[in-house]
Amino acid sequence: MQQLIASLFLTAFDNPLLGQREDQARMPLAPLTQQGDRLAFTTDSYVIDPIFFPGGDIGKLAVCGTVNDLAVSGAQPLYLSCGFIIEEGFSGEDLVRIVTSMAHTAQQAGVQIVTGDTKVVPRGAADKLFINTAGIGVIPTEINWGASQIRAGDKIIVTGTLGDHGATILNLREKLGLEAELSSDCAALTPMIAPLRAIDGVRALRDATRGGVTAILHEYAQASGCGMVIDEAALPLKSAVRGICEILGLEALNFANEGKLVLAVAPQAEQAVLDALHAHPLGKEAVTIGEATASTQVRLRGIFGTSRLLDLPHNEPMPRIC
Amino acid sequence: MQQLIASLFLTAFDNPLLGQREDQARMPLAPLTQQGDRLAFTTDSYVIDPIFFPGGDIGKLAVCGTVNDLAVSGAQPLYLSCGFIIEEGFSGEDLVRIVTSMAHTAQQAGVQIVTGDTKVVPRGAADKLFINTAGIGVIPTEINWGASQIRAGDKIIVTGTLGDHGATILNLREKLGLEAELSSDCAALTPMIAPLRAIDGVRALRDATRGGVTAILHEYAQASGCGMVIDEAALPLKSAVRGICEILGLEALNFANEGKLVLAVAPQAEQAVLDALHAHPLGKEAVTIGEATASTQVRLRGIFGTSRLLDLPHNEPMPRIC
Repeated sequence: MQQLIASLFLTAFDNPLLGQREDQARMPLAPLTQQGDRLAFTTDSYVIDPIFFPGGDIGKLAVCGTVNDLAVSGAQPLYLSCGFIIEEGFSGEDLVRIVTSMAHTAQQAGVQIVTGDTKVVPRGAADKLFINTAGIGVIPTEINWGASQIRAGDKIIVTGTLGDHGATILNLREKLGLEAELSSDCAALTPMIAPLRAIDGVRALRDATRGGVTAILHEYAQASGCGMVIDEAALPLKSAVRGICEILGLEALNFANEGKLVLAVAPQAEQAVLDALHAHPLGKEAVTIGEATASTQVRLRGIFGTSRLLDLPHNEPMPRIC
Repeated sequence: MQQLIASLFLTAFDNPLLGQREDQARMPLAPLTQQGDRLAFTTDSYVIDPIFFPGGDIGKLAVCGTVNDLAVSGAQPLYLSCGFIIEEGFSGEDLVRIVTSMAHTAQQAGVQIVTGDTKVVPRGAADKLFINTAGIGVIPTEINWGASQIRAGDKIIVTGTLGDHGATILNLREKLGLEAELSSDCAALTPMIAPLRAIDGVRALRDATRGGVTAILHEYAQASGCGMVIDEAALPLKSAVRGICEILGLEALNFANEGKLVLAVAPQAEQAVLDALHAHPLGKEAVTIGEATASTQVRLRGIFGTSRLLDLPHNEPMPRIC
């Protein structure tokens, strides 16, 4: 079983580094130092349920999520590791489908899966399949993006409709039966981010996954000492997502996304950033939704001009969203 | 809950890189290029059951295992990521104990845990706790260890008693009730490996974890095109491990170790390597157990001189051994 899986991975993820067949991948440092002066290194475990969903699957998610966590630092993502925890009896057909999806996504994102591990656990010790990926990228010398760079007056931009991933999974899990328009936005964002490196005044990027835009706004506020004020009327929402929120009394700003950035940019960079984002298919609905302020509060300004505190949700709205 | 855990990790693993609080750790490349010319990158998921055992716990194992997979390439292990998958309701006290153990082990091994992720899954979706670690190290320019370097006539050395980890877990899981002497050998091997870098004629190192020494011998044979012949009488075994094997009809060579190397070294390097290993507490029982041959078979030579094929076990003897 272990050997079958190893051979499946070696075939699907085929690249010279993986083919070394040692206990570790070995990559020359010299080409990295030509691309930048810092390594970026990140990891996430993916435990999403269901493992297949409109717009993606756990394998695509495991590549995109880690690639995006690298790319938001300005890094060029280069190498991924992957660790599979598989429940005994898991469908071989589904495993092939997921591994093929990972390989395809990695190729599109320009990263190589260079090392991996598989553990099969007895039935009942894990639910179907969990995937961990860790990623390495290189940050170009001139780039210094980070939440601590944000200043009062900076514009807050999102790159498209919010909450699509969270609403899609919620619809499946709670069997709400809404079919139309609901699809995860799961995507690797590197190609959309790359042109931003040439623009002066980009302060910080994060992808709004678990915890949604709300979590990112709070992280930005905490790291920068600034407040954030967001215009409710400016939030781009698909009508199906808006519908789910109204029916269930939920806040789309708290929903997970898997292909949307929240950017903070200097006011003089706003138009150049929007133009660059609009030039990419994944960013064509990018829009400014608010700004950083001198206060320390995170606030949502309603349609009639009154504003309220935008708190972090006390409970995770849904486990196994990613 | 997520925030409590994040704060536990930040406190326990405290280091400047982790403290950046971005979605990725960022490490300057310049110091790495002074240490060598290649990155080593590896990952493993740890699903061991039970999570506490004589000689270690899942946290210590998750650090040592990945550190060792880096160190056997000759690399200096530098940075680890960690991903936790925690079953809802898991004891907070046990989590603190495990995280503290990881922090202590990382400090002893000279690595920094610089990035991490936590997922809490509903009760029954995972059994207690799984940990993934990925690791980055730098391989010194002059080192080129690897299984493909092995040549006929090379000596095969192990660094101490075999099967201690596997026998310890088997004893616990099967409630064999043997207490004396049984303790996992779980340890970070970097300090024992470092002096070997100065010795000419070291061909390959691997740590004999899942699949035991048998698996490594087959990997060596496959990568080098050489055969392997091992002397049964030379195998260092604790009497408790020997006893378990005799009672259950099992082969200690197939048992997992978590702190033992299998080395292939040129004949002229044998004594220098043994001397260097004996100088370290973890290697004081190092001994030559056989050699690489011109045939392609992996054979075990018995006490009376006859030899038999040493096959890979058809089934994993025990799931969740690491």
